[in-house]
Amino acid sequence: MEKSNINHHISRQFNQEIEDIRNKVLRMGGLVQQQMEMAVQAIVQSDVELAEKVIQQDEDVNEMEKQIDEECMLILARRQPAAFDLRLLISVIKTIGDLERIGDQAERIARMAIQLQDIDQKANYHELEHLTELVKSMLSGALDAFARFSVDSALKTFKEDKKVDQEYVSIFRQLTAQMMEDPRNIKRALNVLNVNRSLERIGDHTCNICEYIIYTIKGEDVRHMSTDEMEEKIQN
Amino acid sequence: MEKSNINHHISRQFNQEIEDIRNKVLRMGGLVQQQMEMAVQAIVQSDVELAEKVIQQDEDVNEMEKQIDEECMLILARRQPAAFDLRLLISVIKTIGDLERIGDQAERIARMAIQLQDIDQKANYHELEHLTELVKSMLSGALDAFARFSVDSALKTFKEDKKVDQEYVSIFRQLTAQMMEDPRNIKRALNVLNVNRSLERIGDHTCNICEYIIYTIKGEDVRHMSTDEMEEKIQN
Repeated sequence: MEKSNINHHISRQFNQEIEDIRNKVLRMGGLVQQQMEMAVQAIVQSDVELAEKVIQQDEDVNEMEKQIDEECMLILARRQPAAFDLRLLISVIKTIGDLERIGDQAERIARMAIQLQDIDQKANYHELEHLTELVKSMLSGALDAFARFSVDSALKTFKEDKKVDQEYVSIFRQLTAQMMEDPRNIKRALNVLNVNRSLERIGDHTCNICEYIIYTIKGEDVRHMSTDEMEEKIQN
Repeated sequence: MEKSNINHHISRQFNQEIEDIRNKVLRMGGLVQQQMEMAVQAIVQSDVELAEKVIQQDEDVNEMEKQIDEECMLILARRQPAAFDLRLLISVIKTIGDLERIGDQAERIARMAIQLQDIDQKANYHELEHLTELVKSMLSGALDAFARFSVDSALKTFKEDKKVDQEYVSIFRQLTAQMMEDPRNIKRALNVLNVNRSLERIGDHTCNICEYIIYTIKGEDVRHMSTDEMEEKIQN
């Protein structure tokens, strides 16, 4: 092969490796999303079998994180990428860390579903419905933004976290009031509050992922900024 | 300069860059440790001024994270390190992420201290004393392990998290009982529970840091392992 052919060949292979990693991140994201949905369903419907599935599947999430991480390290060592490719790989390493922690929160929720099976059969947890929808929509927005490398989608998703935080506070107040009204509500309310906090954390992790996407594409580290500052940075 | 001299010069400069990054991580770790201690003190002593200092200083923590992150990216792009150096840089990027999140938990605790100033003057929060000591000892153990690249210290610190988790559960039970006994305890108990969860999270982040240290030195990804498996991996 001529030298230019070899270079072309190497760069094509490199692109394939990057593409392969992106696909794996999306697969991991899809699994984590499913975990979260199943965990909430398990607690709402007192479905212990489903909760056990979530706990079992968390190992797959962990395994995927390790695998993708290792592949990123191999590419970093072998290909020594710079600029966009380097930012993408580092962002992938951070993204899978946050996805894994979302998976952990799903597992926490599932474990609660199992603990509650005896004491709290028809607890129903309707208070969490709206928050669950908000967080689900954020997570799929972030995965979509990652798939399409879309700064706009990432920013739009990031902004949704404000609604998540408001809903979190509103559920917290509502449940505190219930506890004070009647101490028999305390056990159930504490469980709802735990799930409440887990869902709010999932929103935060999703925001982190949006920030990494913006960093990858724009080269701007937008962490710890207000959305206004963020928008200004991105437009430049 | 002769070629071997140039190489020597580059490698010395590279070592200095790496050393510089390590020192910055330790400085960031020291600040985060201080933040955590001040936050707990602020809530225990109802010291609003101290709480405000914690909130203000969180910006410094965030700024340090961004700076170290950027330096790591520059070294990765310019020096294209492999093996130990690559693992160290990626571990630093992950470590400062966890340190920043520990700082966030300290800020959360500080914000609670301010919220409580009117309603809960002499609440005193003695239940948290032992847990605070455990978590403080873990964090300084992890920073020490990082400073000395000591696998043994990292493993020892990692193991301490079991005690943190036990204490967390014990505080949770104790506070739940207090709420059920007398609904007037509810508000205070919920606050203690929030700080309880923040401290437990700090323990988890500290464990992550220990895992990165082991990975850097041993080249073994020991995440999601039991301590027995971990010890076996490390001995090989």
